[in-house]
Amino acid sequence: MNKITFSTFLTSNTDLDETMIAELMRHCRTLFFKKGDFLLRQGDTCHASFFVEKGLVRQYGIDNEGKEHILQFAPEGWIVTDRDSLYNKTPAAYFIQAIEDTSIFLIEEELVSKLTKSHSNFTTFNDTLLHNHIRQLTKRIYQLLSASAEDRYLSFIKTYPDILLRVPQTMVASYLGITPESLSRVRKSLSGKNFKK
Amino acid sequence: MNKITFSTFLTSNTDLDETMIAELMRHCRTLFFKKGDFLLRQGDTCHASFFVEKGLVRQYGIDNEGKEHILQFAPEGWIVTDRDSLYNKTPAAYFIQAIEDTSIFLIEEELVSKLTKSHSNFTTFNDTLLHNHIRQLTKRIYQLLSASAEDRYLSFIKTYPDILLRVPQTMVASYLGITPESLSRVRKSLSGKNFKK
Repeated sequence: MNKITFSTFLTSNTDLDETMIAELMRHCRTLFFKKGDFLLRQGDTCHASFFVEKGLVRQYGIDNEGKEHILQFAPEGWIVTDRDSLYNKTPAAYFIQAIEDTSIFLIEEELVSKLTKSHSNFTTFNDTLLHNHIRQLTKRIYQLLSASAEDRYLSFIKTYPDILLRVPQTMVASYLGITPESLSRVRKSLSGKNFKK
Repeated sequence: MNKITFSTFLTSNTDLDETMIAELMRHCRTLFFKKGDFLLRQGDTCHASFFVEKGLVRQYGIDNEGKEHILQFAPEGWIVTDRDSLYNKTPAAYFIQAIEDTSIFLIEEELVSKLTKSHSNFTTFNDTLLHNHIRQLTKRIYQLLSASAEDRYLSFIKTYPDILLRVPQTMVASYLGITPESLSRVRKSLSGKNFKK
């Protein structure tokens, strides 16, 4: 997957003007994380949003038995953060980790806070991000409640078309809330259906 | 459960001053819904947030096989709306329905929009609502991925301590994403544990 810069993302997806985008770019910086590095650890306070320019990260939690559960993947062009920790300055409930060597455009919350106070179009951009997040989360809950393992897998491919070959099957199963064995069955069943076509 | 007025809720839970609360109260109105009435139907555009003064509502969807899946209950003191439909003026993906005779304090989005433009403390209030919503949704996803049926049920009781006797078991099972038979087993197992104490 090609690198996506934050300025390209903003130009394509928002109404922010060039001056505002230039100001954002001037105040932010790009950080590099090796595969396995943590952008945020559970228990730390989150101070920034992370825009993925190149690479792949995941947000996940670990249960009492040491099992990992993946809330979200974020490939190129996605923003990931711990909204609760960021807003309420509370310890993060989940980890955010690079699962490939990853280049992150770091957007400090302090800057976001300053810009939303002074620029109404930036406030609109931030509001849109919050509402998009709520829509995605609600959709994910509804799917976990209602969809079969097969439908969840098909929806996963639609949401993340480029990452299926970039993550281990155990992580896909963790995201879908099914066992790796169920995932194997789903994949076999679907490849059988394609074969019959 | 006793009636909770929106002004009491705002006084207890926000930093909004009396003048602001009075202005809100002056521009809003209370509506009454009979048990079974819809506050919002799937496909309609949502124009307001609903504060439950007295009664109980649910937000739910119906899958292709006609089965209902409950995203949320909202008893006294809760706010429920379709954020995506409200913000993007798109057709609502889910239903919001009274499951008891319910008194709703209706907060029109047009008013919220006006107040957030002119009063920074109202903007903060609205931002807090959005972030609380994101926290609750994320927690619910994590729980659906990681928790046993028993733990989900215990968490349900904690989230909604007053409504267990007010909703049919089929709705509780639908909210938890388990079958009514599994819910019966969980309840039996838990009552067994209590008996042994």
